Amino acid sequence: MTARQKETSIELEVPFRHIDMMGVVWHGHYYAYLEEARTALLRACDLDAGDLIGARYVFFVIESKCRYAHPLYYADRIRVTAWLKDIEHRIHIAYEIHNLTHGKRAARGHTILATTDLEKNLLLETPDEIRRRLVA
Amino acid sequence: MTARQKETSIELEVPFRHIDMMGVVWHGHYYAYLEEARTALLRACDLDAGDLIGARYVFFVIESKCRYAHPLYYADRIRVTAWLKDIEHRIHIAYEIHNLTHGKRAARGHTILATTDLEKNLLLETPDEIRRRLVA
Amino acid sequence: MTARQKETSIELEVPFRHIDMMGVVWHGHYYAYLEEARTALLRACDLDAGDLIGARYVFFVIESKCRYAHPLYYADRIRVTAWLKDIEHRIHIAYEIHNLTHGKRAARGHTILATTDLEKNLLLETPDEIRRRLVA
Amino acid sequence: MTARQKETSIELEVPFRHIDMMGVVWHGHYYAYLEEARTALLRACDLDAGDLIGARYVFFVIESKCRYAHPLYYADRIRVTAWLKDIEHRIHIAYEIHNLTHGKRAARGHTILATTDLEKNLLLETPDEIRRRLVA
Repeated sequence: MTARQKETSIELEVPFRHIDMMGVVWHGHYYAYLEEARTALLRACDLDAGDLIGARYVFFVIESKCRYAHPLYYADRIRVTAWLKDIEHRIHIAYEIHNLTHGKRAARGHTILATTDLEKNLLLETPDEIRRRLVA
Repeated sequence: MTARQKETSIELEVPFRHIDMMGVVWHGHYYAYLEEARTALLRACDLDAGDLIGARYVFFVIESKCRYAHPLYYADRIRVTAWLKDIEHRIHIAYEIHNLTHGKRAARGHTILATTDLEKNLLLETPDEIRRRLVA
Repeated sequence: MTARQKETSIELEVPFRHIDMMGVVWHGHYYAYLEEARTALLRACDLDAGDLIGARYVFFVIESKCRYAHPLYYADRIRVTAWLKDIEHRIHIAYEIHNLTHGKRAARGHTILATTDLEKNLLLETPDEIRRRLVA
Repeated sequence: MTARQKETSIELEVPFRHIDMMGVVWHGHYYAYLEEARTALLRACDLDAGDLIGARYVFFVIESKCRYAHPLYYADRIRVTAWLKDIEHRIHIAYEIHNLTHGKRAARGHTILATTDLEKNLLLETPDEIRRRLVA
């Protein structure tokens, strides 16, 4: 599997309510931007909500991380790209946020998802039927 | 029923992440402060989650409103008071936010809750068993 | 002035993180949706940030209100329309949220803005130079 | 310096609005909990806002990370402990979230702060006058 093939991007504009006293986006809000791209990526793999996710499995975030390079300002246009980095035991999704207004990389991050069954038992490996959709 | 008898207050401190570019609390965050006081009020009535709410009924917010008097700043201590204003058809909860740091009234507001059964059918009146707890 | 002429709409999709334990959008998040439409409306009037707002005047929200009709669910597409209702003493902006997925009106609301000068003195009337842009 | 000497804890209760569709706290909200503990820690070092921070320097978050162990549920009481792990080039603050209701460790995390001057120039080392307060 060439992971970057499964790459999805979304674009959005930094809203007023995300800007803090220092005039830049509060660091915690970046995880909302990552979520928008992750939703798009999983949806592209037919893994958003439906016959598998929700019906038979649940995704549970076990790690999130973000490294901030250049601050984001009010009304900046950003592009958030998400791609699959690893899908064996855990689904590792990597992200890059690019500031389209200033032409700079704003941040990089990742979230790692574990899969549980409906009784919330953590599965040691990503189930085959999920894996197949991720590499398809 | 003398509604103001059912009055509950909570105190909290304005966190950094709620302050916007203008240096004051973004207006939408006040609804989080109201929620803290509402939770305390409903809990004092034994109506938070348990044998009635969650098990047999669901509260659904049908209206929220806030009037802002004096802005709130980073690290201000506030007291949010909630009380029952009307409980017949809808549960009308009123609020007052007092800035303990500056000694001024910061805001007033209300939220109106309707009750639904577990199938999400709106009930035309607040069920008796809920009403009894609210006036107890 | 025919206020509804100054009408602006934006569309967005309800994100996962806005859905609460009851499976619907938490009522406080609607104010974020209203903000997106208000930003678009003020920008269409050239009143977002620039020579007047930010440079000479500040808008301050003095009242916000929302009435919820039909709940919003995860991934619902919504259209938020904002228009000017009154601009004399205060700038009264009204909103309607329409659920494009279910074809129902989801909510109505308003926010009222007062204008202050840079020293945060509340102005009794909307300044002429702002008013002209609103009715242009 | 024995970093864990500079350890500060805060306690809070998980609010309704932080719970997502899966019935647990949405992963991004943990960064709000970390912030509450960081504010308390920096305040204990006299580095919240005042003669140094705000007046001569600005803290800028350059990395945030959280590892989630056991989910948090509505109304869980949690204790968030923050301590200084490294203060040479960057201020590295580590955190642990303990669920007091279930008696389990809920999460661990860190945020790394860089210092800038008021012109937003990144400083290569933590200024001495800040460092002195952190180790005092």
